[in-house]
Amino acid sequence: MSIVGRQSLKFKEAPYIYECASVVGKKEGEGPLGQFFDRVFEEGMCGCKSWEEAESFLQKNSLETLLAKSEMPVSDIRYIFSGDLLGQLIATSFGVADFEVPLFGLYGACSTYGEGLSLSAMCVAAGYCENAVAMASSHFASAEKQFRFPLGYGNQRPLAATYTVTGAGSAIVSRSKGNYNVRIKGVTTGRIVDYGVKDSMNMGACMAPAAADTIEANLRDFNVEPDYYDKIITGDLGSVGHTILCDLLMKKNIDIRDRHMDCGIEIFTEELQDTHAGGSGCGCSAVTFNAYIMRQLNSGQWKRVLFVPTGALLSPVSYNEGKSVPGIAHGVVIEHADE
Amino acid sequence: MSIVGRQSLKFKEAPYIYECASVVGKKEGEGPLGQFFDRVFEEGMCGCKSWEEAESFLQKNSLETLLAKSEMPVSDIRYIFSGDLLGQLIATSFGVADFEVPLFGLYGACSTYGEGLSLSAMCVAAGYCENAVAMASSHFASAEKQFRFPLGYGNQRPLAATYTVTGAGSAIVSRSKGNYNVRIKGVTTGRIVDYGVKDSMNMGACMAPAAADTIEANLRDFNVEPDYYDKIITGDLGSVGHTILCDLLMKKNIDIRDRHMDCGIEIFTEELQDTHAGGSGCGCSAVTFNAYIMRQLNSGQWKRVLFVPTGALLSPVSYNEGKSVPGIAHGVVIEHADE
Repeated sequence: MSIVGRQSLKFKEAPYIYECASVVGKKEGEGPLGQFFDRVFEEGMCGCKSWEEAESFLQKNSLETLLAKSEMPVSDIRYIFSGDLLGQLIATSFGVADFEVPLFGLYGACSTYGEGLSLSAMCVAAGYCENAVAMASSHFASAEKQFRFPLGYGNQRPLAATYTVTGAGSAIVSRSKGNYNVRIKGVTTGRIVDYGVKDSMNMGACMAPAAADTIEANLRDFNVEPDYYDKIITGDLGSVGHTILCDLLMKKNIDIRDRHMDCGIEIFTEELQDTHAGGSGCGCSAVTFNAYIMRQLNSGQWKRVLFVPTGALLSPVSYNEGKSVPGIAHGVVIEHADE
Repeated sequence: MSIVGRQSLKFKEAPYIYECASVVGKKEGEGPLGQFFDRVFEEGMCGCKSWEEAESFLQKNSLETLLAKSEMPVSDIRYIFSGDLLGQLIATSFGVADFEVPLFGLYGACSTYGEGLSLSAMCVAAGYCENAVAMASSHFASAEKQFRFPLGYGNQRPLAATYTVTGAGSAIVSRSKGNYNVRIKGVTTGRIVDYGVKDSMNMGACMAPAAADTIEANLRDFNVEPDYYDKIITGDLGSVGHTILCDLLMKKNIDIRDRHMDCGIEIFTEELQDTHAGGSGCGCSAVTFNAYIMRQLNSGQWKRVLFVPTGALLSPVSYNEGKSVPGIAHGVVIEHADE
């Protein structure tokens, strides 16, 4: 039986991550992971007429890069699971339309890549398809315009704020082994957790309780201790959320401090790049996973990782109406295939 | 094998629709299907402080009604697949948070209920859960504010426009037979179809090509003629989209005119309710399906239905930036269980 515990699945035939791709903007290219990305676009508009078009372009380019690297014809992709942060997922709609692949549109805020990898793996493991694509994107400028202020206003960002990553990550989840010795062994699906935090400039604090809830559920469902994983990697908690997450889990006697990593902390160097608490956005965990974490897993440097993209479920309307910012986090258990 | 054709799945053990619920606003209650809805809220705000809160209230109330009717404890629901039309799915986030059930947030515009029923059935059929809930909502006032103008502006609606349904529909998809003799036999997952229509006040025209594409794919994948179905039921094409859909399919020698039905046309009476081309919104197909179509299927009045909720993939930003309105439609094959 693949059901384990209340929130998790463990796959008997664990799907492979066949290939993955990451395309990013200039700032991400200048960060510590710059050398690992497939493509770096030096210009934020990517030659398009609007920030939203640029984000769609990144999704399209990520998928084209993915297909080229995998040498797989698009007709072999049965489903795309994709999402972004913009209202009504327009980056996705205009980014994937040309491929004419059946699409499941997803919204999980910055947890979307975890949601997409989960559903892709579930469909592959169930035999519903040979290959599915999971994808997520974000763009600094389209996100600032969507959630905060147009860039031209030059608003000040508090130190707890994160910097939305410009980038799109995509991966082929497959029944067959491709270019990586990496498999998705299981998933832990997150639920909404709301501690009542209302500060949209401190999304780490909003999301950390959800990350703690999903990590605790994963350890409980799989009946393992934190050292079962070489790394437990959240999406975009940043430095503030990292501290809160470790504190919350310590209160439950779960100590992940020696193996916690956060994509938002890894992707930028605050001292040099003025990014404050770290990177964020759907694209943050997607491109960091594809460019860096996959490399570590493929080489066997890490044998087993719990990947937990984290999402803050706010909209400009909910925020301005004084609502809290609930969080959600989707866990994916990913292993080196020789394990 | 459950895979049929390029876009479809046929379930060996077809999941049941165990129970369903529909809660709506006053105008829907006054329409021709009024007697069939579980609850009608006479006041648009539903006692809340904003339109968005009211829509969240409808999701919450729909789920409470569903659980009460099914006599199922919430702990027996393993997954919720839910979505709405608002930016970043806030109606869903605030509507389902209290239930503490693992959530997959979906965005398929007004096709969301088809997307949710599809993924719920896929998860149940794969053995990933005993029960999953599919849900979708919309609210006339929150949608007008989101996509067009605040109600107070009193803007004029052209005759091709549809009227967003206020309501939330939810259903338990289950391995077990519940209160209905109705099963989900298969799904046909839609892809994005864009004919370049830019008029967001004529969403029927925007979505009809996607509906035609999915219906054609379903007939091809299952290798059947339109008369295999007692009804082919789209989500919210309205009267304008209905005509375009039938014309587009006739050009491919597919004649569905004698069995096409549209939830948007059924839910209101234009002559009496001034709703122009019909109803629309995620909630339109969800509550019409749950309140009326399920009744017809359960009684055996209809033996087999192709249910095709249709979505228009626009956002206020994409529309104002002059982009077209692509469409998507997800098909679900639903049968009377004695079939």
